Amino acid sequence: MKKFIFGVALVVLFSCNMYFAQTEQPAIIEDFKPSTLNQPGQQYPQVNSQGYARFKIIAPKAQSVKVSLGLGGRGGTALTRAADSSWVGTTAGPLDKGFHYYHLNIDGGTFNDPGTLNFYGSIRWESGIEIPAPDQDFYALKDVPHGKVQQILFPSKSTNTSRRAFVYTPADYDKDQSKRYAVLYLQHGWGEDETAWSTQGHSNLIMDNLIAEGKIKPFIIVMTYGMTNDVRIGGMANFKIEPFQTVLVNELIPYVDANFRTLPDQPHRAMAGLSMGGMETKTITMANLDKFSHICLLSGGTFSLDDVNKTPGFKEKVKLAFVSFGSRELGGNRGFGGGDPKANAESLKQAGLNSVFYVSPETAHEFLSWRRALKELAPLLFKD
Amino acid sequence: MKKFIFGVALVVLFSCNMYFAQTEQPAIIEDFKPSTLNQPGQQYPQVNSQGYARFKIIAPKAQSVKVSLGLGGRGGTALTRAADSSWVGTTAGPLDKGFHYYHLNIDGGTFNDPGTLNFYGSIRWESGIEIPAPDQDFYALKDVPHGKVQQILFPSKSTNTSRRAFVYTPADYDKDQSKRYAVLYLQHGWGEDETAWSTQGHSNLIMDNLIAEGKIKPFIIVMTYGMTNDVRIGGMANFKIEPFQTVLVNELIPYVDANFRTLPDQPHRAMAGLSMGGMETKTITMANLDKFSHICLLSGGTFSLDDVNKTPGFKEKVKLAFVSFGSRELGGNRGFGGGDPKANAESLKQAGLNSVFYVSPETAHEFLSWRRALKELAPLLFKD
Repeated sequence: MKKFIFGVALVVLFSCNMYFAQTEQPAIIEDFKPSTLNQPGQQYPQVNSQGYARFKIIAPKAQSVKVSLGLGGRGGTALTRAADSSWVGTTAGPLDKGFHYYHLNIDGGTFNDPGTLNFYGSIRWESGIEIPAPDQDFYALKDVPHGKVQQILFPSKSTNTSRRAFVYTPADYDKDQSKRYAVLYLQHGWGEDETAWSTQGHSNLIMDNLIAEGKIKPFIIVMTYGMTNDVRIGGMANFKIEPFQTVLVNELIPYVDANFRTLPDQPHRAMAGLSMGGMETKTITMANLDKFSHICLLSGGTFSLDDVNKTPGFKEKVKLAFVSFGSRELGGNRGFGGGDPKANAESLKQAGLNSVFYVSPETAHEFLSWRRALKELAPLLFKD
Repeated sequence: MKKFIFGVALVVLFSCNMYFAQTEQPAIIEDFKPSTLNQPGQQYPQVNSQGYARFKIIAPKAQSVKVSLGLGGRGGTALTRAADSSWVGTTAGPLDKGFHYYHLNIDGGTFNDPGTLNFYGSIRWESGIEIPAPDQDFYALKDVPHGKVQQILFPSKSTNTSRRAFVYTPADYDKDQSKRYAVLYLQHGWGEDETAWSTQGHSNLIMDNLIAEGKIKPFIIVMTYGMTNDVRIGGMANFKIEPFQTVLVNELIPYVDANFRTLPDQPHRAMAGLSMGGMETKTITMANLDKFSHICLLSGGTFSLDDVNKTPGFKEKVKLAFVSFGSRELGGNRGFGGGDPKANAESLKQAGLNSVFYVSPETAHEFLSWRRALKELAPLLFKD
């Protein structure tokens, strides 16, 4: 019975994300604009061209308003009361590019910023803010043919309910009714759920754009709930992989193969996951190498030569072993458990495996690392 | 150029929903359970078997915490500080059965209850609570074949972007690739968006259950954003139907007919909408009777004999004129503009039209009225 002790270590170690791109802060340029993740018509929070975030909260009689975002684990950004009795404040430095979850602390309670859309992370719906990245074009909504993201409810006898998954089908899926597609099973991280990859992850837009540019052969993506949050905070040591493995391998995959035009064999089935989802991916695929040929761990563990050697059939059956991290996750004693991830990847390559290691520049344990990883791994899938 | 003066009147008149089923309150039965719309693991808000709602908010240093729900427009429910410095309170009476939007007022600011899921209403993501209804079985998640809810992004030249819609396809859609389906275009109300009908509306589950019971022939439902909120509060008088009509009729319908296996003709195309969406439905269908055969207004206006007489082709082309309200919306001077809705419906029937009038028992201008209306109207669509 496997327990995710390592997973707990990762969550703890990565909880101090480094939000600031640098420590010497430049003068703030006053070109703030509403974040692209604001609710319709909401002017705050705002982001400037340097990546500073500015918040404005209406709570006239509050005694303190703080934003969890801003000081890299050192208490966030305290807002101050303005003349109009709103609360305002700007982060002490630029935030990393990409997507950040956050929340407010108002008089000692945890609430969301009413200005923003909500995203499921930390086993709650959190506020979200987006700092424009130089390469944001690859996940932008563009005038290209768009695939669909479908909510399915699949029967699950093992959990005695109908479970939800989201399925991305590429734009050409409905054009040629004889065409069949390979499938990537794509998992979220701890505290998140099956909504993560198609909302904050933009998996559908990343695929639409890669397909429109001719960079990948279209495939299907299936995103479901990894059941990582059923145990509460602090209980991850008791997390067991078996219930989710049963749902995924025995229930979801047969349902998808029966209800979508898939290529239902090992060469055309991949699994990827971020953080805890990477742990799940590694455990489930290595126990089911007859079902998965392409395995991708995003900020969620590595493959060592020892993993390969003690897993019968790994060399023959695994067509891609992809490992990625954000650059800010690397270096120092980051507790990767299985050894240095880059050295590991290199050792697999030396052993003749299709081992790919990718580092997302200047990002931490956050979604820009994983959007980029999806963009990098997609062209490597299902090559033969 | 049509302006929705009537729509504004409706919004104002209906803003004082009657939440209480009765005025003499019974003793509170202490069988409170977490609302089914709570975030995972959250114990509050809770609902008891009588329909009382109890709230608990953590905000130790707050000076006042109020819930917008509870006193029918008279200020909501004020919470009081408990011994553990949380804020707790119970509504002064039972709430109407079904779904209610609400929010908190904390020290003068508007925030969501961190215990609940969020639902788009009032042009913001609001907290939601569900009071179990005696007939809740018809929108329950059951062990029946489930259709899919698909997010599509369709090109819109008139608005120069890709627009989002959700498309429900019934469970058998992927089984028989030669089968084609009729389509219902189903609109949300003012302050809501294209997510409303498949989340708080449970349109997919209502359809799954009706189909499983053999009560309807499967059809497709398309739900998109009615553009009603682009003008801010108070600006609805400037709302123009033309931009949305262009998107719906010239862009979305052709896209759906090209990308789904529809029966792309007038006899197999219906439109329904709630509140503002009912106004939109009436205006757009009556200007496009060559495209729509079944028209349904849910708490959103009525058809008078005058409407019929001054609209060439109405009698021949309209196969169903369905009008519904919640019982608490009727009676008194409720400003229905076009006259008494029941008398109107009767006059159409006398004139030989297939006119159906439905009243949802003991509900107001809220989603249980509209879930029930969908259940009532679905079996009446596409009969020939």
